[in-house]
Amino acid sequence: MLAMKVAGTHYRSIWPIERPGQGNVEHAVGIIDQTQLPYAFACVELANLAAVADAIRTMRVRGAPLIGVAAAYGVALALRADRSDASLAAACEALAATRPTAVNLRSALERMRGALLRVAAAARADEAWREAGRMADEDVQINRALGAQGARLIAQAYQHNCERNSHRNGHSRTVNVLTHCNAGWIAAVDYGTALSAIYQAYDAGVPVHVWVDETRPRNQGLLTAWELAAHGVPHTLIVDNASGLLLQRGQVDLVLVGADRATRGGDICNKIGTYLTALAANDNGVPFYACVPSPTIDWRLNLARDEVVIEERDHDEVRTIAAQGGRARLAGSETPVANPAFDITPARLVTGVVTERGIAAPAQLAELFPEQRQAA
Amino acid sequence: MLAMKVAGTHYRSIWPIERPGQGNVEHAVGIIDQTQLPYAFACVELANLAAVADAIRTMRVRGAPLIGVAAAYGVALALRADRSDASLAAACEALAATRPTAVNLRSALERMRGALLRVAAAARADEAWREAGRMADEDVQINRALGAQGARLIAQAYQHNCERNSHRNGHSRTVNVLTHCNAGWIAAVDYGTALSAIYQAYDAGVPVHVWVDETRPRNQGLLTAWELAAHGVPHTLIVDNASGLLLQRGQVDLVLVGADRATRGGDICNKIGTYLTALAANDNGVPFYACVPSPTIDWRLNLARDEVVIEERDHDEVRTIAAQGGRARLAGSETPVANPAFDITPARLVTGVVTERGIAAPAQLAELFPEQRQAA
Repeated sequence: MLAMKVAGTHYRSIWPIERPGQGNVEHAVGIIDQTQLPYAFACVELANLAAVADAIRTMRVRGAPLIGVAAAYGVALALRADRSDASLAAACEALAATRPTAVNLRSALERMRGALLRVAAAARADEAWREAGRMADEDVQINRALGAQGARLIAQAYQHNCERNSHRNGHSRTVNVLTHCNAGWIAAVDYGTALSAIYQAYDAGVPVHVWVDETRPRNQGLLTAWELAAHGVPHTLIVDNASGLLLQRGQVDLVLVGADRATRGGDICNKIGTYLTALAANDNGVPFYACVPSPTIDWRLNLARDEVVIEERDHDEVRTIAAQGGRARLAGSETPVANPAFDITPARLVTGVVTERGIAAPAQLAELFPEQRQAA
Repeated sequence: MLAMKVAGTHYRSIWPIERPGQGNVEHAVGIIDQTQLPYAFACVELANLAAVADAIRTMRVRGAPLIGVAAAYGVALALRADRSDASLAAACEALAATRPTAVNLRSALERMRGALLRVAAAARADEAWREAGRMADEDVQINRALGAQGARLIAQAYQHNCERNSHRNGHSRTVNVLTHCNAGWIAAVDYGTALSAIYQAYDAGVPVHVWVDETRPRNQGLLTAWELAAHGVPHTLIVDNASGLLLQRGQVDLVLVGADRATRGGDICNKIGTYLTALAANDNGVPFYACVPSPTIDWRLNLARDEVVIEERDHDEVRTIAAQGGRARLAGSETPVANPAFDITPARLVTGVVTERGIAAPAQLAELFPEQRQAA
């Protein structure tokens, strides 16, 4: 089984650091600074709550699964400094305020709060550290299982292409998957969501090629291209505008994306532009699957529209762009800008939701998680 | 009536230059180098066929109407150097090869060839110069008339918003128009197509605000923002991915785009990404109009799909980006890229086609041009 590597070394996107300090053990969390990727691979230590909150806000850590785990470590670091109930509450509040859309952040904080309030203050800091570590390990297990489910879709598409190929000369058997944003191992703790499926199909020998949406404004597509190149998966970078034409031309077999929040009803809140891709997939009869680990499902919501807060981010994310050698300026500060970070793909455009327990049509999503029947 | 100005001076996007030379009059055409906009406003002289062909290929001049007129001037300059039939044929061939998608280029060359083959070689160079000038003037008249037609749509939307406003408190009366790419005066000779409608509505006092798609990879949205700012029209720049969410939220009253080629049946071939915007407009019940001056209609085609050649442009247009101070690098040359420049919006997604003669549903487009009934 694969584990994601950078230049031959296995990395997770976040890891605990414990080292002997003055009289006790110092704790920190290590991350890959994703704002520097793909131009530089820089690992950074976050030593306290404020550093974790800032890393989430500025997207040095990003991706719904990773944000959840990072927040858990943020709580753990806060409790090392002050293990009181008030400190726990303040840490959760500060972390919850960093980004509004991904549900993983909120549910991770709820889980930490629930687990730690039951623990005596003296044991709280160690327990928080262990609980954050358990969440990281669970994320890895979940997304490995999710990827195995998603890989079946790619294998099926390959089978379909092989059957077509016996009728139509020249049609490639390679499965063309289109993805948006980065739903890779650096967006989770390891493996990723949509890319976990692609990696596992690739490792199983299925010929696969990935169309990678650039994903303006923050160009997470370049992170996806970087991941895919590191693993050897064939891919082609395109501007977001190009997905429609590729779908029109029959050059896409399957769309696989991640999610920042899915509802019980199968609405998918994901990186801005996902909805456009889903419309084009639907218009051309191409299956559109969202890869959604269960911690990303908001069981309280049936419909996302009007209920999910869409984050509006800094306007200089549009006026400038991350490039080799630093940010380049595209438009002056006098140019008015809007910069919503997510959109909502309604369940009617979603062929299926890929989870760690299996793949379900949106309306049947809850059947995979019977323990959540009461949560509505 | 407005005429488009830069810093208070009226400019067309292309103009003839005649100056006393050694024993005769030297001819050239002046253009605004659009690859430098919005960072620098630089006028450039094109003195011969090769310079014109290069300017079209490299998109120093761009926009279907302007490309057509520039090509006509290219023929005229070629004939000043060599007025033979062979020179005329070679000039048309060289210019036709610059860009494949916009039909204006081909029809301008056909018009020049047809007009000039009838003229004695001795008179050909002067006649070519006059014919190119007539085409430029016609373009201005056509797009002024087209804009007056399109402005009616914006005025009607304003009326509709005013009526809604009497029922719903807080709903703005301002008409929100979304546009893609640059269909402004610099894409034509003057006024523009989609922006001609917006300028004329604005000048008539209709409150209008424009959502401007950035339009990767070449960011023509920045040209649109530059034009709108110069004319004082309120606008907001967004990444292309954001149009779907704005449409979902009801923040768009009307989509107005230009076209590089429209078919008799009302299919619209326009800048890559237009199809995605049309899908999202359709999904949210928002009218989608293409502003198509008649020289942009390819009367020989009914359906665009499989018949229009979609230009594939240099992959470094995706790997790098035009920015203040020069191009910035986003991805290395090892990153595989696809860069199709246009897509096709099928007529079923087009509410209406705005022409200089009026506005028609796609299926009725030919009724506005009865003289084209035989061309099919």
